[in-house]
Amino acid sequence: MRAIKPYSQADLNRVINELATTLGDRINLSPAVRAQHGGGDDSYGNLPPDAVVYPFSNEEIAQIVALCNKYKIPVIPFGAGSSVEGHLLAVKGGISIDLSEMNQVIEINAADMDCRVQAGVTREALNKALRYDGLFFPIDPGANASIGGMAATQASGTNAVKYGTMKDAVIGLTAITAAGDIIKTGSRARKSAAGYDLTQLLVGSEGTLAVISEVQLRLHPIPDTIKAAVCSFESVAAAVDTVINAMQMAIPMARIELLNGLQMQACIQYSKLEGFEAKPTLFMEFHGSESSVAEQVAQLEDICREFGGSAFKWAENTEQRNELWKARHNAYHATQQLQANSKVLTTDVCVPISKLAKSILQAEQDAHASQLPCTLVGHVGDGNYHLLIVIDPTDHAQVARAKQLSAQVVDTALKLGGTCTGEHGIGVGKKDYLKVEHATAINMMKAIKMALDPKNIMNPGKIFDL
Amino acid sequence: MRAIKPYSQADLNRVINELATTLGDRINLSPAVRAQHGGGDDSYGNLPPDAVVYPFSNEEIAQIVALCNKYKIPVIPFGAGSSVEGHLLAVKGGISIDLSEMNQVIEINAADMDCRVQAGVTREALNKALRYDGLFFPIDPGANASIGGMAATQASGTNAVKYGTMKDAVIGLTAITAAGDIIKTGSRARKSAAGYDLTQLLVGSEGTLAVISEVQLRLHPIPDTIKAAVCSFESVAAAVDTVINAMQMAIPMARIELLNGLQMQACIQYSKLEGFEAKPTLFMEFHGSESSVAEQVAQLEDICREFGGSAFKWAENTEQRNELWKARHNAYHATQQLQANSKVLTTDVCVPISKLAKSILQAEQDAHASQLPCTLVGHVGDGNYHLLIVIDPTDHAQVARAKQLSAQVVDTALKLGGTCTGEHGIGVGKKDYLKVEHATAINMMKAIKMALDPKNIMNPGKIFDL
Repeated sequence: MRAIKPYSQADLNRVINELATTLGDRINLSPAVRAQHGGGDDSYGNLPPDAVVYPFSNEEIAQIVALCNKYKIPVIPFGAGSSVEGHLLAVKGGISIDLSEMNQVIEINAADMDCRVQAGVTREALNKALRYDGLFFPIDPGANASIGGMAATQASGTNAVKYGTMKDAVIGLTAITAAGDIIKTGSRARKSAAGYDLTQLLVGSEGTLAVISEVQLRLHPIPDTIKAAVCSFESVAAAVDTVINAMQMAIPMARIELLNGLQMQACIQYSKLEGFEAKPTLFMEFHGSESSVAEQVAQLEDICREFGGSAFKWAENTEQRNELWKARHNAYHATQQLQANSKVLTTDVCVPISKLAKSILQAEQDAHASQLPCTLVGHVGDGNYHLLIVIDPTDHAQVARAKQLSAQVVDTALKLGGTCTGEHGIGVGKKDYLKVEHATAINMMKAIKMALDPKNIMNPGKIFDL
Repeated sequence: MRAIKPYSQADLNRVINELATTLGDRINLSPAVRAQHGGGDDSYGNLPPDAVVYPFSNEEIAQIVALCNKYKIPVIPFGAGSSVEGHLLAVKGGISIDLSEMNQVIEINAADMDCRVQAGVTREALNKALRYDGLFFPIDPGANASIGGMAATQASGTNAVKYGTMKDAVIGLTAITAAGDIIKTGSRARKSAAGYDLTQLLVGSEGTLAVISEVQLRLHPIPDTIKAAVCSFESVAAAVDTVINAMQMAIPMARIELLNGLQMQACIQYSKLEGFEAKPTLFMEFHGSESSVAEQVAQLEDICREFGGSAFKWAENTEQRNELWKARHNAYHATQQLQANSKVLTTDVCVPISKLAKSILQAEQDAHASQLPCTLVGHVGDGNYHLLIVIDPTDHAQVARAKQLSAQVVDTALKLGGTCTGEHGIGVGKKDYLKVEHATAINMMKAIKMALDPKNIMNPGKIFDL
């Protein structure tokens, strides 16, 4: 893998020198720091940017982008580096804009349950800042991602079944355009019909249209009662049917997560879980008033029983609950530990709930046929799941087989009315799937991209090729 | 008011003749039909299109738009004609595309709680089609609007406080671009991170980017228990404080609507309501399980009592409930009846909940100072309200005073972090407010418009001028 750079070394030097004058030691050219910014938490490898800059303000980002635009040098926004679709690879070289110094919670409007943060604030830091207001920010992709990165990739995770995704959470943005203009989208009102919805256009645009620098977020009151439980099943089909029934009864679950047998085995090993079995398992969480949670639990216990589920194993206190979800969040790393020196290729399809059983059972069949070790974990309340394929990255035949398996999983999902990515984004790896999924609509996406970034400097080579 | 037409009569004749060949009697040139398509349910007057066409399919719309694009003749999508911001005025002439013949419910996926409809299906027709599946489509702007029109204007209404707006309801679209391409956006999955969110870009784009021809909608189960009640207050401030407290306690109200004293007087007269007083009043509806509704009602009764509200007056059965909401929906017409030969100029601001009291009290003060009869009605659970200003359209001084009052209301809302339109859109009347609200972000909107509709034929003169 090599970067193809659309600019000369002389122009790059000019830009770096000018940036060094204004940013001082907040530009870094060291190979280690560049490499650290040249990839995410995935199996796409590493393509380091030419330099990394650490702006303090919207105005500094605007200066950086305007200068890069002048010389056609790409800019790649960097949050916490937890992307899993190669969003950070400098495929055409350029400057990484690391937003970690922009880590201020600008305002918390407790009465309106919203807040405004700089893009570099992480979700854990935000929830820490909110804890005295009785509020929380529910979107939880597992990693301690930055809010800006989560907005750019349209992240979601375990709480989305009740609280929605970043699309629902983000009500406004400050962003810097390719020309270096600072724009503000949305408002603090709960709804608006004022012009084009630029907020939602930028959420999920993966840095290809603008650099997101501030995010206005909708928050939620910390529920009176939170209960978490685990239930295991004799088959994936039984667990999935349980989920489908729960969703069709519109039980307002906060989380309902599926781990298949091998995934449970990996998690038991990795997180040293005690008293769990390596069987298909649902991790569940219930939020609400005491009576509402009691009602939800009773309904769900009924459904679980109907499909042969075990008795609920309860997380008795906050500590146990945190342990449980930590184990769930570490599913990816647990899977990687199944085999020495391995990497994990992850799929991320999402299908209509009624197609979930068909889609997952087909994925498990295809996985079995591939003879590759695969775990399966999913935000199944949304119809979203990940087949995690363990590969030896040095074995090219194996990598090819893994890619083929991934393509099969996507193919099945699309045929069932689903999408090739529920929450990770397109990045560099899913451009071909996007073509299949959106066909002629991609022309509209490209027209927008070319209008807003005519020199193609905003995280180029992601989502589609021009 | 006169249309300024960017095309020659010869080209128009050519297009009309060609359309007549393919559409037969589904093109109408009669002055009456054209006039009926040249305005909405508002005080912006009438500018008739040159012709009205009634396509049967996506393909026919594509042909019509491609032909019009060739000759730079504007196209104006027409749903049910219930726009209130002048969206239908043919300010640059052109062809009205009436979607009323595209009125099929294409599919209902009860298990996934979604459906796909042609754009001309009205919300009442859809709810009729859904009734045997135990599902309903909650968005209710009052008028029996078409789903396509509601998507194009980002409509919402009385149920939005619980169920959200068209942004939340629409999960995918079929749309026809200016070039006459048929594109499909979104998917049936509950979430997706696959490329730019064209669905949300088109929702609320008021026909300026594409003609929406099919809509995929999220549906909801009909609640087990529905209860509606009315509570009156001694002052608007007390009623608003009640709402603010209810929202801050996150009580999941389905509807919470405010009518001020004069609005109540108008509704009592117009809808012959018995047993109501002409005082500031909240109309409320609760949805949920029996126990959840009981819990909500108890919480709300407590808050109402705290702010001096009357005892709840209950709608005892479905008939009484429907009567109540019909009276609420007729607030606009009731206001118009306050004065003979009048028109109503309506504002549509939306502010953060914590600013609602300040915003409404300022609006009432400004209304009083204007000496114009004004009613006030609002989806106050969202922070969205309408000051309805009664005007004699032949009295220019009065019209000017009404416009000034409207501008004051918007000005206050924007200063409080709100928006100039919560649900009606920009249309022809709010273009100047949009400039104040979104400043430099409008350049991004314009760049998108010019990229997707370079000849400016898609409902030109709406949202902004190029």
